[in-house]
Amino acid sequence: MLVRGDPIYIRSSIHSSGKGLISILNVAHIIGSKQFDQAALGELFASAKEMENITLQGGSNLLAGKIMCSLFFEASTRTRFSFESAMHRLGGSVIGTENAAQFSSAIKGETLEDTIRVVSGYCDLIVMRHTEVGAAQRAAAVSTVPIVNAGDGSGEHPTQALLDLFTIQKELGRIDGIHIAMIGDLTYGRTVHSLSYLLSNYKDVKITFIAPDNAVIPQGVKQFLDEKGINYEETSDLTKAAETVDVFYQTRIQKERFPSLEEYNKASGQYIIDRQLLDHMKEEALILHPLPRAGEIHADVDTDPRAAYFRQAQNGLYMRMAIIEQCLRAK
Amino acid sequence: MLVRGDPIYIRSSIHSSGKGLISILNVAHIIGSKQFDQAALGELFASAKEMENITLQGGSNLLAGKIMCSLFFEASTRTRFSFESAMHRLGGSVIGTENAAQFSSAIKGETLEDTIRVVSGYCDLIVMRHTEVGAAQRAAAVSTVPIVNAGDGSGEHPTQALLDLFTIQKELGRIDGIHIAMIGDLTYGRTVHSLSYLLSNYKDVKITFIAPDNAVIPQGVKQFLDEKGINYEETSDLTKAAETVDVFYQTRIQKERFPSLEEYNKASGQYIIDRQLLDHMKEEALILHPLPRAGEIHADVDTDPRAAYFRQAQNGLYMRMAIIEQCLRAK
Amino acid sequence: MLVRGDPIYIRSSIHSSGKGLISILNVAHIIGSKQFDQAALGELFASAKEMENITLQGGSNLLAGKIMCSLFFEASTRTRFSFESAMHRLGGSVIGTENAAQFSSAIKGETLEDTIRVVSGYCDLIVMRHTEVGAAQRAAAVSTVPIVNAGDGSGEHPTQALLDLFTIQKELGRIDGIHIAMIGDLTYGRTVHSLSYLLSNYKDVKITFIAPDNAVIPQGVKQFLDEKGINYEETSDLTKAAETVDVFYQTRIQKERFPSLEEYNKASGQYIIDRQLLDHMKEEALILHPLPRAGEIHADVDTDPRAAYFRQAQNGLYMRMAIIEQCLRAK
Repeated sequence: MLVRGDPIYIRSSIHSSGKGLISILNVAHIIGSKQFDQAALGELFASAKEMENITLQGGSNLLAGKIMCSLFFEASTRTRFSFESAMHRLGGSVIGTENAAQFSSAIKGETLEDTIRVVSGYCDLIVMRHTEVGAAQRAAAVSTVPIVNAGDGSGEHPTQALLDLFTIQKELGRIDGIHIAMIGDLTYGRTVHSLSYLLSNYKDVKITFIAPDNAVIPQGVKQFLDEKGINYEETSDLTKAAETVDVFYQTRIQKERFPSLEEYNKASGQYIIDRQLLDHMKEEALILHPLPRAGEIHADVDTDPRAAYFRQAQNGLYMRMAIIEQCLRAK
Repeated sequence: MLVRGDPIYIRSSIHSSGKGLISILNVAHIIGSKQFDQAALGELFASAKEMENITLQGGSNLLAGKIMCSLFFEASTRTRFSFESAMHRLGGSVIGTENAAQFSSAIKGETLEDTIRVVSGYCDLIVMRHTEVGAAQRAAAVSTVPIVNAGDGSGEHPTQALLDLFTIQKELGRIDGIHIAMIGDLTYGRTVHSLSYLLSNYKDVKITFIAPDNAVIPQGVKQFLDEKGINYEETSDLTKAAETVDVFYQTRIQKERFPSLEEYNKASGQYIIDRQLLDHMKEEALILHPLPRAGEIHADVDTDPRAAYFRQAQNGLYMRMAIIEQCLRAK
Repeated sequence: MLVRGDPIYIRSSIHSSGKGLISILNVAHIIGSKQFDQAALGELFASAKEMENITLQGGSNLLAGKIMCSLFFEASTRTRFSFESAMHRLGGSVIGTENAAQFSSAIKGETLEDTIRVVSGYCDLIVMRHTEVGAAQRAAAVSTVPIVNAGDGSGEHPTQALLDLFTIQKELGRIDGIHIAMIGDLTYGRTVHSLSYLLSNYKDVKITFIAPDNAVIPQGVKQFLDEKGINYEETSDLTKAAETVDVFYQTRIQKERFPSLEEYNKASGQYIIDRQLLDHMKEEALILHPLPRAGEIHADVDTDPRAAYFRQAQNGLYMRMAIIEQCLRAK
């Protein structure tokens, strides 16, 4: 049961069946969210749940002696922390650089491929954040160890989408049949794209896209959803949509993308989750956000039981433990 | 026996009696030096002494499986190293960022509170250096794990004061009755303030403040000492004062604070500890400095047995081992 | 069997005989390549070979409880990674700073000596990269733990030269009698100098220096080789020389050294290893490069079995494991 059309893919039964991962050079990589099918996702979720138990019991020594390299060509302290914590919770070690822009070899004119060829000899797994779309794929093509894509430019951020989906499964007990609203910067928000791809594995999912005029969901994502037969709509009325939504996926309007501060302010003030909106939501609804937030969810929403974004961040640890373990087990 | 008037405080018998720490959300934090009373200090010193033995015997696995996060919003390599080494000597792991100014979520507009909410899910203890007064307190208010304040702006730096005091106790065998001279930048030197607060727990302490006219001890510190009934004086004659002083606490004149290089040079050249001054000191006197120094103690003083500043830096390791262990034990 | 004329030297039989290292303050340091004689090199190679086996078997706990400090006053991600990975593969822990220029104490006016006095109290070994020639020597003079020089300005980079030589020994089975061509930036390339010093320990070695007119081998290195009776020549015809060469040691033309882009382009385009040149090389020749490369070896050479530069980078891990282990064992 392979996912078609992708150069890198994972056989669905990677965990329980022992069939292992299939990929470039016989090494398992996590490059994009399209590489997962529903069976693979189910196994990852089961593993993440197990990782939560391991963490609550004080961690494990499962990966003692293994070394993870955090190769961040662009700062992302939160993501890096969650991966490094995941590795330590499993007993492994970490080497890394937190400052992408100053990676010394890159400055001296080295290609990404050469960097990966060398670094993959110094570790058992590389978690890479890069500024360019496709960088993770290029790295995987030459690496002798698993590459985990921790964000490549405006491309993908699959591990974020995986933890988002895991949170939905964990909190609601199901993914089939949910109505999810994706709100905010839908043009540049790569997690929105990655999550949309993952959702296409499930039945009767309905997506409502709610975005400022200058940050709507790209044609490419809609085309993908059309091909997969996923039900979606675009609207500008958050309050009205709120009444039937199961999952609110709020995102930050990224200031740096907008042509002027005025336009940014208009866009960023448009779709806010506040106490007023809570009154329009279903009792069992879920509010998610990949974080960091910058005002688009009011602080006084935090104490509402539906506010799940900090639990979601915590799930990031468990999902990344599961990802690291599977990549290293499959190797 | 709680220290009054502080939002965060520690019950005196935290180590031997098993009564544990009292604090926000049932988690023990080290925020400021006023939170300690004499009994608590005595237990910390005993623990630090034990930590020295543990280190000399090659370390321990007491904190195996525990993760410390070094969250430095401002670079302080020496302080960070001593905390991270302390964690490793006790068998624990470390995640961290050394570059405060570029903490990526902060740049994206995230509040400190949100950062702490997420990061506290990825570790068992946060050591934080921040640029703003009160940041440690704010962090503690939302953290699910202990916060150790490693300096918050011109606020406090309690662990430095703790190691300073530990050094005095260890070298002189007593703190009651000592005459201490605090020299240099007494306005901006937060360790001087923190150490003054700690000294107020002891009997018959006399403090002599010696500072350039533009860097004198603040009114607030003097008022605190008045309330506690601590004997202090201000003078400009270091040589004369030297004859009765037990502990010289020299500090660096911080170039960046002064309006002009000329004024800085005048101030910085004013109170120097050199071989000449050694002749005026008591045989059993102690010379301390929080380091780094920049000329205010001459290098040819280093070989004098009274020069204790490198032993003091070494004690920082043991004190921080004790602090980490107590916070994690109390949790 | 001590190497004469050096303030820091290593007794030849450090590994098997148990005689230990001799050096400043009874601590073993790796400062420069001249400190090694042939016996010491032989033991390091044997140890590095053993370290390869240890790594292939999943690492060891030989250095559990030990702490290495990566003190990089100048970024060098690749070198830092290889040292830190080496430490982890042996079960040790790492503290470190990757950003030399912003080392906070240095900014505040602290001397290197003071920094080392403090930091050596927080670890068991310091790996230091610095911008100034002689910095490693100065550090060793005051350190209470071993200093490993990971490059000091345009001075030495002994561990690179050691891994270069180890690669030659491993790939060709011998060093005596080889003909080596050193190509590229021979003026500023410190690894070329360090490697030349090491080669002087072997019999019947012939060195051919091939460099642009503005980057020739310095007089001092030639004088050293003359004194040691090493056979060397300078030529500008790489293709002709290729036919008798056993080892091609290609280096990067360092853009930042050249007065203009035009001159740099002329120099950098001059000596390229490409598929055409492969036809002129001996079957059993070896192509080395300290990396990173920036065009001076074409990517289509990579698949040729004689292209050994990525294996060489891998050997860096094993050699640094051997170096760390020997320094800590000797302490």
